[in-house]
Amino acid sequence: MPFSHFRTVRFADTDAAGVVFFANYLAICHEAYEEALAVAGLDLKSFFAAHAVVVPIARSEAAYLRPLHPGDKLRVVVTPAALTADSFALSFEIFRVGPPEKLAARARTEHVCIAAATRQRLPLPPVLAAWVNAG
Amino acid sequence: MPFSHFRTVRFADTDAAGVVFFANYLAICHEAYEEALAVAGLDLKSFFAAHAVVVPIARSEAAYLRPLHPGDKLRVVVTPAALTADSFALSFEIFRVGPPEKLAARARTEHVCIAAATRQRLPLPPVLAAWVNAG
Amino acid sequence: MPFSHFRTVRFADTDAAGVVFFANYLAICHEAYEEALAVAGLDLKSFFAAHAVVVPIARSEAAYLRPLHPGDKLRVVVTPAALTADSFALSFEIFRVGPPEKLAARARTEHVCIAAATRQRLPLPPVLAAWVNAG
Amino acid sequence: MPFSHFRTVRFADTDAAGVVFFANYLAICHEAYEEALAVAGLDLKSFFAAHAVVVPIARSEAAYLRPLHPGDKLRVVVTPAALTADSFALSFEIFRVGPPEKLAARARTEHVCIAAATRQRLPLPPVLAAWVNAG
Repeated sequence: MPFSHFRTVRFADTDAAGVVFFANYLAICHEAYEEALAVAGLDLKSFFAAHAVVVPIARSEAAYLRPLHPGDKLRVVVTPAALTADSFALSFEIFRVGPPEKLAARARTEHVCIAAATRQRLPLPPVLAAWVNAG
Repeated sequence: MPFSHFRTVRFADTDAAGVVFFANYLAICHEAYEEALAVAGLDLKSFFAAHAVVVPIARSEAAYLRPLHPGDKLRVVVTPAALTADSFALSFEIFRVGPPEKLAARARTEHVCIAAATRQRLPLPPVLAAWVNAG
Repeated sequence: MPFSHFRTVRFADTDAAGVVFFANYLAICHEAYEEALAVAGLDLKSFFAAHAVVVPIARSEAAYLRPLHPGDKLRVVVTPAALTADSFALSFEIFRVGPPEKLAARARTEHVCIAAATRQRLPLPPVLAAWVNAG
Repeated sequence: MPFSHFRTVRFADTDAAGVVFFANYLAICHEAYEEALAVAGLDLKSFFAAHAVVVPIARSEAAYLRPLHPGDKLRVVVTPAALTADSFALSFEIFRVGPPEKLAARARTEHVCIAAATRQRLPLPPVLAAWVNAG
């Protein structure tokens, strides 16, 4: 079962057009990623510190299908997928909770594991690889 | 009983100092205000539209007592208090959930009710006044 | 000559990883778009109001090539391109100013012109089409 | 002569009420502080690293006098003042550039110098104290 993160749209997410600013859809996806890792027992901050790695985002893409307004309830589905030994992808679907539930956006990010000190690529630490492969 | 809003600190809340950016404590307080109103059946967006009013913030103040890190669990307590017929104040306490729970910040905002069209002061609509007075 | 927008990285753009949060690269691109329109005499807010249209972003993609730190000076190049009668694309290159200047990110957004009231697709107003076609 | 920072309001600064979100006035003040330090030859990031200190904000307050819209041109005046050997205050005035120029907000922040490692109070490094005292 893919992971679902629940979130309410806030005024701070929106802009003067009255709806969520396009870049903030990606911030909301990242929240869902952080929450998915936390639920799996992986705290990003202490994990990175412990392994001396960082996992920056190398690419992102998003399709914005519906506007989102303050107070809208969201469900964000996160699905990881392995790419290479040192990288993985996350697929996101942002639903506006209904009824009826409506798909509001799709996004995808690619993450590369690198040494914090040298910024050279490193294989994913096993616990992170396990989370990715559990998809 | 004052209202408590629960929230996890996200990477997007923080800055390069590693902790929540000072202005984002206020954004987190505003989220708690939005949630408190929603729980009371008051959706800010439709409420403002229906009453042709807006309730901008005229003043804010905050005391930052502890740094907050990604993954920290927060409890934000919101307490409204009447000021005049057309204004009210909100007191906020941001706790980092424990054990032990620690007070991380205090904040206060003042809100003034004005006509959306003319920006002249107007008495609070009764349903909003009732929420404030239930404090 | 494509338009260049100059911008300094601020603490508020960054996160606890010490560098600009990935979603904020897109916010910086949008700033450059707003500035390019303003320089062309097109104020987004009054333009949208006057024409009763909005031009939401339907898709975005970005490749993040280098981390950006507080204080880094950026040059953001914006290049519009026509897609259809009711849509256009913007290509962005974010350079970290040198010497030597380094490409830090590439991004692309697709924008669709719709009626503000009905959200049905409309041809770009002529002044916006002219800006796009001047590329 | 106090330092002036010039800045245009962007869509990302605003919320669904159509104007700059109250917490973002403080983020704009912090930008002006970063720029004032940079112009004085003090890069916050390398400065903090070099002196093993951080200078977190202990208090903030703001009075919001006028709404600010996308495209508005701002001038932010920053005035430092010494408080104690290990702390200082910054006063900010945000003007909407005219003609006529109008005061849109006043803010004030208090900053405390602490050791990055122990978080114990430390006297301001001389170069920072000099900037504060030049007020």
